[in-house]
Amino acid sequence: MNTKPSKQFSEIETEILSQIRPTAEEKKKLQAVQKEIIADILKFAKELGQHDIIPIPVGSAQRETWLCGNHDIDVFISYPEETSFEEFGKKSHAILMKMAQTGESWEDRHSEHPYIHIQKKGFEADIVPCFRVKSGADIKSAVDRTPFHCTYIKEKINGLQDDVLLLKQFMKGIDVYGSEVKTGGFSGYLAEILVIHYNGFENVLKNAADWKIGETIDLEKHKSLDHKHPLVVTDPTDPKRNVAAALSLTKFSLFIDRARAYLKTPSRDFFYKKEYPPLSKTDFSNIMKKRGTQMIGIAFETPKKADDTLYPQLFRLEKSLEDLFQKNEFVVMNTYSWAEEKSVILLELLADELPPLQKRYGPPVWNETNADAFCQKYKNNPDVYSFTIENECYVAEIPRKYRTGKQLIEEMILKEAALGKHVRESVKAGYQILQQKEIESIESISFWKFMNEKLTTRIKP
Amino acid sequence: MNTKPSKQFSEIETEILSQIRPTAEEKKKLQAVQKEIIADILKFAKELGQHDIIPIPVGSAQRETWLCGNHDIDVFISYPEETSFEEFGKKSHAILMKMAQTGESWEDRHSEHPYIHIQKKGFEADIVPCFRVKSGADIKSAVDRTPFHCTYIKEKINGLQDDVLLLKQFMKGIDVYGSEVKTGGFSGYLAEILVIHYNGFENVLKNAADWKIGETIDLEKHKSLDHKHPLVVTDPTDPKRNVAAALSLTKFSLFIDRARAYLKTPSRDFFYKKEYPPLSKTDFSNIMKKRGTQMIGIAFETPKKADDTLYPQLFRLEKSLEDLFQKNEFVVMNTYSWAEEKSVILLELLADELPPLQKRYGPPVWNETNADAFCQKYKNNPDVYSFTIENECYVAEIPRKYRTGKQLIEEMILKEAALGKHVRESVKAGYQILQQKEIESIESISFWKFMNEKLTTRIKP
Repeated sequence: MNTKPSKQFSEIETEILSQIRPTAEEKKKLQAVQKEIIADILKFAKELGQHDIIPIPVGSAQRETWLCGNHDIDVFISYPEETSFEEFGKKSHAILMKMAQTGESWEDRHSEHPYIHIQKKGFEADIVPCFRVKSGADIKSAVDRTPFHCTYIKEKINGLQDDVLLLKQFMKGIDVYGSEVKTGGFSGYLAEILVIHYNGFENVLKNAADWKIGETIDLEKHKSLDHKHPLVVTDPTDPKRNVAAALSLTKFSLFIDRARAYLKTPSRDFFYKKEYPPLSKTDFSNIMKKRGTQMIGIAFETPKKADDTLYPQLFRLEKSLEDLFQKNEFVVMNTYSWAEEKSVILLELLADELPPLQKRYGPPVWNETNADAFCQKYKNNPDVYSFTIENECYVAEIPRKYRTGKQLIEEMILKEAALGKHVRESVKAGYQILQQKEIESIESISFWKFMNEKLTTRIKP
Repeated sequence: MNTKPSKQFSEIETEILSQIRPTAEEKKKLQAVQKEIIADILKFAKELGQHDIIPIPVGSAQRETWLCGNHDIDVFISYPEETSFEEFGKKSHAILMKMAQTGESWEDRHSEHPYIHIQKKGFEADIVPCFRVKSGADIKSAVDRTPFHCTYIKEKINGLQDDVLLLKQFMKGIDVYGSEVKTGGFSGYLAEILVIHYNGFENVLKNAADWKIGETIDLEKHKSLDHKHPLVVTDPTDPKRNVAAALSLTKFSLFIDRARAYLKTPSRDFFYKKEYPPLSKTDFSNIMKKRGTQMIGIAFETPKKADDTLYPQLFRLEKSLEDLFQKNEFVVMNTYSWAEEKSVILLELLADELPPLQKRYGPPVWNETNADAFCQKYKNNPDVYSFTIENECYVAEIPRKYRTGKQLIEEMILKEAALGKHVRESVKAGYQILQQKEIESIESISFWKFMNEKLTTRIKP
């Protein structure tokens, strides 16, 4: 695909670029703060006798693919590969604690190992220790790959920086940007690789318009990966890794649809996410009347954990509640997860009350062991409405155990729902069942924006 | 299986036999009437110059496997194989018209070709013309097989007549006897073959207890048949025919279950079908309240056709309505067909009203032709609640077209339901939609017995 240089940008694209390219002043300021951070690291390392560390700036600023208004700085502190984990932990902790004091405020964070986040002169900086390994395929900890990504892109991006800016902004506008679990979209690195592979912003869209599930991209002709992901992009710096592993099928498909739509009718709307005003309680009540469906769900204190720890647990609970309701013959139309101080999981049901009678299908008559157990349980049970055979199977009409969604949640939430560690603790500590009235009493602008988006989204044009 | 003679009958079986074996007086009377019919046929044939016909008595009386109280006589009039269909029709018509006058009353009937049914001295006699072919495999019309069946059983039944009586009565008692479409059970001939094959009543049950779907029986070691039926019994007189072709999977499975139950706990109850008293309207109303489900259906004039013409059409309509309701997202719990002067098809629904909103799943985004059509239809449609992508597919939340079962039947019965010729004519001439109130106003003892059975059946013990 890497055949000819990207064509000139359209009027719309040129206008968007003028809005998203960092200004000379912004660049200068970022460089200055970054320089200061690197200098501090070197100074503290010297004081601590750590002569073998190297500070490496790795943010998108390094490769000139950062969007204006993004005030993130990423500086890694690399230790020699042979450093033991114990020594690495001790040594890096010493530097990090000193670096913490250089910001206006700081917090310690964790991914695989601890790092710090500081606020400094209007920038958000992550200072992350890592191992200086030989290649992306030899990493000792997940973050060790990042310097290789940075180097790779810097080498290859030549002249396509604006295309990356446009693609990132487009992805933000259509809500598929960000590889964290909550979003399940495209990472910045993935956007950069796409631009390099297809040679420019518009070519990315043209090719994406024809993508199908299982699309593979292998820039460095490593042997192809056998991943079960919608999009498989072999990491040029680590042949075993799929750069698009975090991309959900929905976001992958949405990108295809939006790429097509933009090529057909370009407009600046694609680059800016639609803002949904908060629903008023009257609006919500009217919308639900018009839909005629029933909302039910639970609310509980949000565990105080990073989003990438929290959201997998919320999504797991959401899916688990959906399965529980379906197993109990409720028709689930939609499910939603939202979290701020409170976490809210909602299910939209066709109906939240079912009749007293339930039909239970048993085993085929010739599966004698199971048939005997089923017959023993229901054949002479006085509560059973009827006991017959349909086709090859026994069928009992029995009293339904859970007639309302509320009852089902109350009795099963802690027993049958798949709960991650932190969500389980929180739900166990106390939860509230939400139905129309309880939902209406939720006081949160962000929740009501979220509900508006969920209930009225219309991808357009 | 044909290893040792049937063991002696149990006390219960001996008692049942004493009740179902025809009395000497009954036998004498039947023989006398049958002789008279044969004599009449020969007399009329002579008068008409039809010297090549042979009257053949073929009923179960011939093989001493008839149940007392069954007053059926079957006499076939066989014509030489080479007779043309035209000549066969003309000649047989002449004899049948004369035979008609010998009964107290008569009616002309049709299967593949006309025959007559007469009432004579307390007996119901079918007089059926057929071709005298060389073997069951060379038949010119379906009935030509019957004389071969009769001969085969007479040859092989030796000493097992009582076992056949018991098996037939057992099958009646558990409601699997009769190969007509309405019943979908075992024919008398099939019962006889089973008794011969397994050597006796109890051995049939012992073997049936281990039957699985696709069970095959090939008494004369013809090459096995490749039929897609639950039970495949090669006709000893016609290797291409499955004697059990009419047996439904439900009746096959029920027989297996009841055989097992009888062997475990024999009782005379198995031999006599439970009588269900008619439901009173109050009972029905209370039962439906307890079930909490909704009945809906239609009633129309029953086409004046033989059961084997009528019932396939009723069952087809029943299945077609079930499909229609399911396609429109109603949950169908049970379906019922009943016919006397009126035909009634009922569906029991989880709920007979659905919310205004319906979720319509479209094609995956990469199926571009279908995706374009789906998007065109819904993307900018102002009636649509939302338009999004879920996983790989477009999804539109649209206004539901059919919110009630009544509306669905009214608009779709003549358009979408699969209607056989006679049922279509009848429905077209006029039908009534039945809901709780309309069902309650049905005046028919037989209907209310039927409903009692359907709503409260419990196979026991």
